Amino acid sequence: MSCKQMGKQSVCFENPPVITGAASVVGKKEGEGPYGKYFDVIEEDDKVGADSWEEAEGKLQAKAAELAIRHAGISQKEVRYMVAGDLLGQLMASSFGLMDMDIPLFGVYGACSTMGESIGIASMIVEGGFANHAIAITSSHFASAEKQFRFPLGYSNQRPKAATWTVTGSGAVVLSSSQRKEELSQKGEKDLITAEARAEKGKVRVKGITTGKVIDYGIKDSMNMGACMAPAAGEVIAQNLIDFGYQPEHYDKIITGDLGKVGKDILIDFVEAKGYNIKRQYMDCGIEIYGEEQNVQAGGSGCGCSAVMLTGYILKMLEKGEWNRVLFVPTGALLSQVSFNEGNSVPGIAHGVILERY
Amino acid sequence: MSCKQMGKQSVCFENPPVITGAASVVGKKEGEGPYGKYFDVIEEDDKVGADSWEEAEGKLQAKAAELAIRHAGISQKEVRYMVAGDLLGQLMASSFGLMDMDIPLFGVYGACSTMGESIGIASMIVEGGFANHAIAITSSHFASAEKQFRFPLGYSNQRPKAATWTVTGSGAVVLSSSQRKEELSQKGEKDLITAEARAEKGKVRVKGITTGKVIDYGIKDSMNMGACMAPAAGEVIAQNLIDFGYQPEHYDKIITGDLGKVGKDILIDFVEAKGYNIKRQYMDCGIEIYGEEQNVQAGGSGCGCSAVMLTGYILKMLEKGEWNRVLFVPTGALLSQVSFNEGNSVPGIAHGVILERY
Repeated sequence: MSCKQMGKQSVCFENPPVITGAASVVGKKEGEGPYGKYFDVIEEDDKVGADSWEEAEGKLQAKAAELAIRHAGISQKEVRYMVAGDLLGQLMASSFGLMDMDIPLFGVYGACSTMGESIGIASMIVEGGFANHAIAITSSHFASAEKQFRFPLGYSNQRPKAATWTVTGSGAVVLSSSQRKEELSQKGEKDLITAEARAEKGKVRVKGITTGKVIDYGIKDSMNMGACMAPAAGEVIAQNLIDFGYQPEHYDKIITGDLGKVGKDILIDFVEAKGYNIKRQYMDCGIEIYGEEQNVQAGGSGCGCSAVMLTGYILKMLEKGEWNRVLFVPTGALLSQVSFNEGNSVPGIAHGVILERY
Repeated sequence: MSCKQMGKQSVCFENPPVITGAASVVGKKEGEGPYGKYFDVIEEDDKVGADSWEEAEGKLQAKAAELAIRHAGISQKEVRYMVAGDLLGQLMASSFGLMDMDIPLFGVYGACSTMGESIGIASMIVEGGFANHAIAITSSHFASAEKQFRFPLGYSNQRPKAATWTVTGSGAVVLSSSQRKEELSQKGEKDLITAEARAEKGKVRVKGITTGKVIDYGIKDSMNMGACMAPAAGEVIAQNLIDFGYQPEHYDKIITGDLGKVGKDILIDFVEAKGYNIKRQYMDCGIEIYGEEQNVQAGGSGCGCSAVMLTGYILKMLEKGEWNRVLFVPTGALLSQVSFNEGNSVPGIAHGVILERY
């Protein structure tokens, strides 16, 4: 078995794709939170000049994508694939928001775990040699998500303590082939190699991925998504450690997407029962993104939550050398308004991405 | 540029993944149509013993997946990834239907083009060396789709002539690495090689893919999806011919997913304007799947339509040697009930897959 097929559920990339560009675009409330200074763009108008919340979310995606491509120092034409998704039915934000990019699109859905899924697929596309550059994008919007999954905002319902607050924001990363340098070197294009090497210094690479399964513990409370997702996150984290033969200490941080305060405790216990203590490394984007005073109950959530924390904060900490190795695990609750109304449980899924400093 | 990055939007596989197993599971009406005899399973009960239409659709997926894996002669454990999707909000059928398969899942959404997207991603995963076996699955269900996108069945609304009938069914294909034989040969496992070679004889391979972009011509009629999708299909077919330098005659058949009678005429004119006459090769799964007497207006549609025609009929025609080369182009209308109610247009997307007899 090649290194590409690592253990039961993981891939270890032989030529790890490089994150050459990243961008985060968030709403006003996220900009006012403790990580506000890290985000590239803070939209003062949550409608982003659009007529509907869904269109606004699409605009966040387009802005994040364009900015990430600019940060990568390439042209839009050089991006061979977009792998994008959101939380809305039929991926409205991605379908409409990215329409004008003129790049072939793979639409993906993994609830709030989608950033892990899109980076995973884009990384395999790049490492497989099918693209020199591919972009992974996800988004969520508080207003479009509340309308889709819970209650219209005008209804002003009360929120239980276990509820999370959907992040308004979009994050995008450009994944570029690390084999290009070698190819250019064979062609003797030395100037280009030096320029590329300079550009890649301090960049973060996707070292590997651990792809999750759907895990259902039978929880039916759409206001307690942390509990629904924690077992799925726990399974993926444990499987990542088993597949690669790592101990938790291998990572400077193990970061989940949006388990929130309730999910966090369940996760730590779950992973401990599998023989790993991750307390020291553990962090959750959903708990971090808002301040205590922002009244968001259990924390932030949504496809955009882990995406903006990744592109706004996590990658910067890696690039600065504060951290060297991170296991990034966006977490998703596979809930639809129809499945919920039909009395179904809320299964979870999570996808792990190993990020390493170059 | 390597063969893996062919022209603007295509991949040409150096070691084309082999379709080692396929399965089609359809509803009663589809079983009564002209292709009834080709489908593996015809469910007499459209609820498949479930409590809801959505759960029923999930059961179709699980049945198709299990059968395709059995046909491939492998165990469920050997399948490293599932790439699956459906038409429902938050991919309800895939999320719930495939939960018990215990295989890592990439959820994908491309409206009715999803079978092209899932085969494309699964093929890149296999050719890239990240899996020896991956499975691509999609489904649709008449009742769950009508409820989601149009009117509840109990409302008994009239259907305009341009309307299509969502196919109840699921198709699954197992894509296997064609490099395995070589690997086994290096290990000197000769008996296994002979067995594998025998199993692969007459099998169909995914020679390449052409991935589509979102194309919007501003059409707003959710009852005329053929017109919405035809330009997207036309762009992908023309781009496939350009990227590979083929003339339409290279293919025995060029087969779209569900353009129906209205979309067909638009497509042929659209491609003709680009300098290619595809009249002789052209076929549409949506037009074929139901008989004239089955009262389905413009034809069949849905993620399941192209998936069951592929797994039920098209692959069999290729395996029998009736056809040698097919361009399979599932077509999707990127419509959600929310975007439609907000007065948005219905953009289209289509993904091309080149199927060749071994």
